[in-house]
Amino acid sequence: MKNKKFTVIGGDLRSCAAAESLINAGYNADTFLLEEASCLPCCIAAGTLPESDFYILGLPATTDGVFINAPLSSRFLSLEDFFNKIPASSYVFGGMVGSEIYSLADAKGIKIFDYYKREELQILNSIPTAEGAIEIAMREMPITLHGSRSLVIGYGRIGKVLAPDLEALGSIVTATSRSHEGRAWIKAAGLDAADTGDMCSALSEADVIFNTVPFKILTEKELSCLKKSALVIDLASKPGGVDLASAKALGVKVIWALSLPGKCAPLTAGRIISDTILNMLN
Amino acid sequence: MKNKKFTVIGGDLRSCAAAESLINAGYNADTFLLEEASCLPCCIAAGTLPESDFYILGLPATTDGVFINAPLSSRFLSLEDFFNKIPASSYVFGGMVGSEIYSLADAKGIKIFDYYKREELQILNSIPTAEGAIEIAMREMPITLHGSRSLVIGYGRIGKVLAPDLEALGSIVTATSRSHEGRAWIKAAGLDAADTGDMCSALSEADVIFNTVPFKILTEKELSCLKKSALVIDLASKPGGVDLASAKALGVKVIWALSLPGKCAPLTAGRIISDTILNMLN
Amino acid sequence: MKNKKFTVIGGDLRSCAAAESLINAGYNADTFLLEEASCLPCCIAAGTLPESDFYILGLPATTDGVFINAPLSSRFLSLEDFFNKIPASSYVFGGMVGSEIYSLADAKGIKIFDYYKREELQILNSIPTAEGAIEIAMREMPITLHGSRSLVIGYGRIGKVLAPDLEALGSIVTATSRSHEGRAWIKAAGLDAADTGDMCSALSEADVIFNTVPFKILTEKELSCLKKSALVIDLASKPGGVDLASAKALGVKVIWALSLPGKCAPLTAGRIISDTILNMLN
Amino acid sequence: MKNKKFTVIGGDLRSCAAAESLINAGYNADTFLLEEASCLPCCIAAGTLPESDFYILGLPATTDGVFINAPLSSRFLSLEDFFNKIPASSYVFGGMVGSEIYSLADAKGIKIFDYYKREELQILNSIPTAEGAIEIAMREMPITLHGSRSLVIGYGRIGKVLAPDLEALGSIVTATSRSHEGRAWIKAAGLDAADTGDMCSALSEADVIFNTVPFKILTEKELSCLKKSALVIDLASKPGGVDLASAKALGVKVIWALSLPGKCAPLTAGRIISDTILNMLN
Repeated sequence: MKNKKFTVIGGDLRSCAAAESLINAGYNADTFLLEEASCLPCCIAAGTLPESDFYILGLPATTDGVFINAPLSSRFLSLEDFFNKIPASSYVFGGMVGSEIYSLADAKGIKIFDYYKREELQILNSIPTAEGAIEIAMREMPITLHGSRSLVIGYGRIGKVLAPDLEALGSIVTATSRSHEGRAWIKAAGLDAADTGDMCSALSEADVIFNTVPFKILTEKELSCLKKSALVIDLASKPGGVDLASAKALGVKVIWALSLPGKCAPLTAGRIISDTILNMLN
Repeated sequence: MKNKKFTVIGGDLRSCAAAESLINAGYNADTFLLEEASCLPCCIAAGTLPESDFYILGLPATTDGVFINAPLSSRFLSLEDFFNKIPASSYVFGGMVGSEIYSLADAKGIKIFDYYKREELQILNSIPTAEGAIEIAMREMPITLHGSRSLVIGYGRIGKVLAPDLEALGSIVTATSRSHEGRAWIKAAGLDAADTGDMCSALSEADVIFNTVPFKILTEKELSCLKKSALVIDLASKPGGVDLASAKALGVKVIWALSLPGKCAPLTAGRIISDTILNMLN
Repeated sequence: MKNKKFTVIGGDLRSCAAAESLINAGYNADTFLLEEASCLPCCIAAGTLPESDFYILGLPATTDGVFINAPLSSRFLSLEDFFNKIPASSYVFGGMVGSEIYSLADAKGIKIFDYYKREELQILNSIPTAEGAIEIAMREMPITLHGSRSLVIGYGRIGKVLAPDLEALGSIVTATSRSHEGRAWIKAAGLDAADTGDMCSALSEADVIFNTVPFKILTEKELSCLKKSALVIDLASKPGGVDLASAKALGVKVIWALSLPGKCAPLTAGRIISDTILNMLN
Repeated sequence: MKNKKFTVIGGDLRSCAAAESLINAGYNADTFLLEEASCLPCCIAAGTLPESDFYILGLPATTDGVFINAPLSSRFLSLEDFFNKIPASSYVFGGMVGSEIYSLADAKGIKIFDYYKREELQILNSIPTAEGAIEIAMREMPITLHGSRSLVIGYGRIGKVLAPDLEALGSIVTATSRSHEGRAWIKAAGLDAADTGDMCSALSEADVIFNTVPFKILTEKELSCLKKSALVIDLASKPGGVDLASAKALGVKVIWALSLPGKCAPLTAGRIISDTILNMLN
């Protein structure tokens, strides 16, 4: 493996960090379409796409379905050109790979894999997501988390990392789950458990509410339960978990925080990507 | 529900605690074949089996397949007599219910349920299991857990509760899993992760090893990796996770700790049973 | 006590929160020179200084030695006028009360007390200080605290709260003290200990350094030990603990974070003030 | 220093561990009057008292004021003989050194030091004391610490280590202190605070009470506040903190746990002694 070559193409600071991390781990890696990033000088490729064994696209691999996502470059490379230029034996890794990319790769007989679908990446991404959420809570609240009451809606990957972090900082934490099993895990973690389907009482006591459930869970009914001073931090990806119109009408402060790993801890998020790709190769 | 009647029959202190817990929660409950337990006086039934809506047998419900398990009574009641005497409309709950009991219940048209199969009971039982394991480690080791190195083999229900407890007490904890996903959870919990299939290095550093994997994982090969002073606490149910003959030959100290919830914290374990049965009824 | 009256005069949001907190605790309190704050409407005094048993000035009580510190008011009240107008039997509480204020109070025979000198206030203020410091670290670092190495210089009030918080978030924490006793406390808290007088090795491994020692402890010599990417957060009050000129010359990123409780968690900081004053009265 | 020689004389397993620890740290050390201990073979001295630079007596150095405390030897050595035989230039370290030993040493011009008086030893000893107390609670209580309510009376060295350990295991912890400052530290640690002088309410809710205050704090009045099922673990040295006669009359279960470091974790306790002596020499 260590004599194989990686080329990281496009992406944001996470891609840059993934390249650095590969080099630090002893691999041969360079970057392309990342000229404006502060990557290690050693790993910036020249003007032409280098030949490699493994190509790593960004997260997401493309934003428009045509060009490779490369916000830290002033150059453009279409997905079609990319697949035309690379060896048929190469492996491509990308994040949130859509069907149009799979089709292009298939047409050339090139193997392509989506690292964003890997469970270990999603679990490890909960760490920067939790820290980003805590940073927002600390910034926005006029009280300390210590001594506050916080409610974490949902006890999946993010909830399982975020809720104990809040508890460790001295917040009094309730977490919710719809299942007996989920609530048993919450209790086993030393937290108070509530039923996601019946949480008005828990909502009414909370100083800060973190939603991790990816559908409209906080409708007018639930938002009406909140304290006037409560802050809602929605960590659910689109379409989000809060009925924003009702929140506005009720005067509830909501912060919809998306893509926290890349924003709050790009180097950590990049290392998670490169570690995940190494797992996929092993 | 609150006007329904429960009768707890046989079992150990956990059954007694389950009855108390039901009474404290406002239910009508008495006990039978528990005369030698320190149950609430109010709930000891007279000599004849009371009529009830719900009958709760012990964990296990029977040890010989013939009589109801009733170690805290000098009387005997066969399963057959029991099913003959109770109303056909009653519900029976038992732990580790075997096929012979299901057959008897079916023959009478009586509904019977195994509370021990419930996931929330298994999760919550990890708490007394973890505390029992920590108590053993504290008792047997000539050093404190604080500052020691501990290895938790397996990151399922018990590992997920035990490993953070050890870390919280100041031990330096490595936990193992066979999967990338499992190891991601271990890292997310702030612990060191190792591969269950490749743990000689982790074994060689550990002062205490807790096995939670329910098959022979510590064979001569793995036991040979251990420090001379290391202590192995095997939490795996029969047949256990340690090759005891090899351990003896190598001079490795092994404690095989079975059924910790009932032994170490019977009241907590009993409350978990009654809570689980209420979940099943709701 | 509950029939006595408090008037909170000037100060920032903390003073407003102190007034609210007194009212919530059942005391009679109003505010003066706080018109622009979002205090409870019930507690805003009219245009003239009310008669009270206890007057509470801000933190600090004055910034220029002449006027009462009142940043949330467009009006001015000199300390001299204040002491002329209030009853000789009243008690005055202020923060960072200087000798000029003591002189004015003495001249009128009025008792004045500095709540900022109280040990319990200083201890409890460590909580918002620690959270503010963590918020800064999370905001400024491209990596998560989880998995990072942090160094806390000094193990006094702030260090004792901050260091365990960092550890709880998954950072690998070293704290320093000059004394064997201090280092024993650090070890007892499950952290790595270093000698404040010999910490180049600890500095060289740290991703983030929090200084709590109130004198120039990070001179060119110590700063030269740091990793290029390290972040220094200086929590020491003036003159600060970092030789800023050397830091600039060496390219070390330093954030000097002063007065975090009032900035990051004014409501919590205000409650700490009112609780402290109630302690002083009891 | 490394060319100096240590001889450990008498004492229990802690003395043996102190010798091992010195050898592991690269010092020249042997033992005397420890033949029945499982010390490293290399360090057992022959029949005559070896010449050394530093002599380390046990904890305590003597139990009768005449002979050196040596429970792991069948031989006897009087303090007087000991001081007659060793070089006048040697240093002697002992635990709980009484005035009779100081007199003997002074008469010979030999320097003697009490390591047990060192603050860092007392702080670090809180770790095995806390673990020993937790082990007792786990063994004696029919419920888990997780979910129980525990009360820690006093927030000195032991309280500051024990209370966070209990909280980390999922107990709901109240700690007490007589001072505002002490209670501020308790709150800063995320625990509930009560006044040691007014704790009947806290006592009445507790499942387990740990006393660390070294005088009769739990008299009949306080013991009357307890739940029937409550367990009291008294960690106070003689004369202890519990009125045992009243406890017996009231049916309160009390365990008076003395000298836990030596009983529960002798190797750790021995390392703390040798580390402390090295601190004293540096």
